[in-house]
Amino acid sequence: MAKAKQKRRAGRSRPRIPETIQRRLASVREVMAKRGLDGLLITARTDQYHLTGFNGEDGMTLISPRQVYLLSDFRFEEAAKQEAPWATFVKRKKSVADELAKSARRCGMDRIGYMPDRITVASLDGLRKVLRPVGTKLVRTADVTAKLRVTKDAKELETIRHAIRIAEEAFLAVRRSIRIGQTEQDLASRLNYEMGRRGASGPSFPIVVAEGPNSALPHAEPGKRVVRPGSAVLFDWGARWEGYRSDLTRVLFIGKIPVRFRRLYEIVLEAQQRAIRAVRAGRSAREIDGIARSHIANCGYGKEFGHALGHGLGLDIHETPSLSSRNPAPLESGMVVTIEPGIYVPGLGGVRIEDDLLVTDIGCEVLSTLPTDLGWALVDK
Amino acid sequence: MAKAKQKRRAGRSRPRIPETIQRRLASVREVMAKRGLDGLLITARTDQYHLTGFNGEDGMTLISPRQVYLLSDFRFEEAAKQEAPWATFVKRKKSVADELAKSARRCGMDRIGYMPDRITVASLDGLRKVLRPVGTKLVRTADVTAKLRVTKDAKELETIRHAIRIAEEAFLAVRRSIRIGQTEQDLASRLNYEMGRRGASGPSFPIVVAEGPNSALPHAEPGKRVVRPGSAVLFDWGARWEGYRSDLTRVLFIGKIPVRFRRLYEIVLEAQQRAIRAVRAGRSAREIDGIARSHIANCGYGKEFGHALGHGLGLDIHETPSLSSRNPAPLESGMVVTIEPGIYVPGLGGVRIEDDLLVTDIGCEVLSTLPTDLGWALVDK
Repeated sequence: MAKAKQKRRAGRSRPRIPETIQRRLASVREVMAKRGLDGLLITARTDQYHLTGFNGEDGMTLISPRQVYLLSDFRFEEAAKQEAPWATFVKRKKSVADELAKSARRCGMDRIGYMPDRITVASLDGLRKVLRPVGTKLVRTADVTAKLRVTKDAKELETIRHAIRIAEEAFLAVRRSIRIGQTEQDLASRLNYEMGRRGASGPSFPIVVAEGPNSALPHAEPGKRVVRPGSAVLFDWGARWEGYRSDLTRVLFIGKIPVRFRRLYEIVLEAQQRAIRAVRAGRSAREIDGIARSHIANCGYGKEFGHALGHGLGLDIHETPSLSSRNPAPLESGMVVTIEPGIYVPGLGGVRIEDDLLVTDIGCEVLSTLPTDLGWALVDK
Repeated sequence: MAKAKQKRRAGRSRPRIPETIQRRLASVREVMAKRGLDGLLITARTDQYHLTGFNGEDGMTLISPRQVYLLSDFRFEEAAKQEAPWATFVKRKKSVADELAKSARRCGMDRIGYMPDRITVASLDGLRKVLRPVGTKLVRTADVTAKLRVTKDAKELETIRHAIRIAEEAFLAVRRSIRIGQTEQDLASRLNYEMGRRGASGPSFPIVVAEGPNSALPHAEPGKRVVRPGSAVLFDWGARWEGYRSDLTRVLFIGKIPVRFRRLYEIVLEAQQRAIRAVRAGRSAREIDGIARSHIANCGYGKEFGHALGHGLGLDIHETPSLSSRNPAPLESGMVVTIEPGIYVPGLGGVRIEDDLLVTDIGCEVLSTLPTDLGWALVDK
């Protein structure tokens, strides 16, 4: 005992754990203590990044009451040292599962929690097989990290704001340079490029650029359709920055606004503004969805708005909460959500307007700043 | 009976199923028959695309002995009609699981197979819950689609070739325009943009551009390091086209080749060429890995080559087979694999050279065409 202590004192002191990470680990360890776990397995890469700052792939993280083990391979050893020097990097030899079993045995762990929505059946079976001989039980432990990530702290908010800024500035550059004859693919590449130039590590998701009738597909892939005089072009895009994502949608009209699109646009914009005005901590997700949905339905397009009003946003593009008619949960202060009503008319096209906002106790702060008025949406060419 | 037949004749005739898809479905149904399944659940998006051509997210596909059901939501209805008009689109109301239960009951399915490496524990539990009351059993059925995808048919090969061509042409454009002062991020954005312009629907994976010592991190994220006279810059990139992916790595030297890099480069190149010469259907993956690995080890860098030699490539960036020391399986004619030895020296940097090739009965065809000689790697600036 004394010897071990001395050894610890004599050893190199471990680098300090950043305060944000400390706070998050403390929350996780509280849950572990409550559920009688001496280990928690982190199998989703975004959870791992959130809890440790380490961004390696193809591994997993094991949290014990006193330590954090990053189980990964050769390729990420250097990165782990830079991103989480305070954690213990375990380089896998045979397999990550084997290293997990070794660490569990070394620490004398009896019960390790896993999150059922973050692990495949095959992976869990594989882990069970190596942990059984060691005497360690794997315990279903739902939603630990999802709950931790549902509201954002100041640092996360700042990062998301920056991801939004990158996306917006890139879009403004594309809007300025849009010209007749460009394909949807050209525009998507350009937007991607402009985001990259501004520091994005990539798009938040495959960029949607949909001209004319293509915009009736809410998740259209950019193709060969070209911008023409009178085109309506829908953009759904976002930037990833330091792991966090932004998510925006705008429609631009080239030279003129087709009559039927003008009507759709006005309905969708009004629905969005009503929903935004209604957002506040304590109100249910389904209530906010209903406010946008009933306006669109009253205008005769209820069936043409077939998706949820919005979703949580952060390290993943779709996080808790879903702003849908099926989610009775109340919004919480500190959530970042999208509000994105849409109307899609097959053959004609679709309109969707999407902003990102922060839920607060007294309402919300709209984090995105691009205009939504029809005058701005009209681009003279 | 007669009535039903008549009805079928009178109804609109279903669009024809493309021949490739027919062949793949037939293989899957053979496995189903062998294992006594009256349904197979496809829960991976790339499997779904491979078996149906439908590219929708957030749903699943149910294959019965006679039908294919695409269970998805509103957002993908139009896309499903275009991409797989011969299949039955089932728009989810409450949840995809509910629609699955309804379809299973309607078809009187007793046993539906699922693939354990393609579904999370939580999803499987959710499906079990809705299928139990209907009397349908979920049966573990490993590797059906992975086996089907391990060798590529003519159409797939043509698509991969095109994905390689896009990546190569884009790289040549970046190589021509590379200049002192550009950051890793600038170069990654540019490469991404040049691929997009050539029709890529996106990069195969987040592009790696790593200058100098950064290249010692096999999976470096492009950052703020700049190209300088005497820089070594490692690029690992690929294009996604029509769902398929290419994957290449090259190192460029700016103005001159640092002495130590020259040596690393020559060793890696020789290791790669030896491995490529050895590839042939029937040889084991581990044998090929060993050929490159022993050359590098003999040159004194065994510990600095810590990853597998290569991997299968297709709809996913990492597919079966892994060309690693742990895989005794023989290569098969029609596999597309990467060969990518590397040496990474912390503090100095790394060299990796990667090509994509097709395994054949008499050897292999190197599908990628970018030069690998040091003369070409040297860029005058």
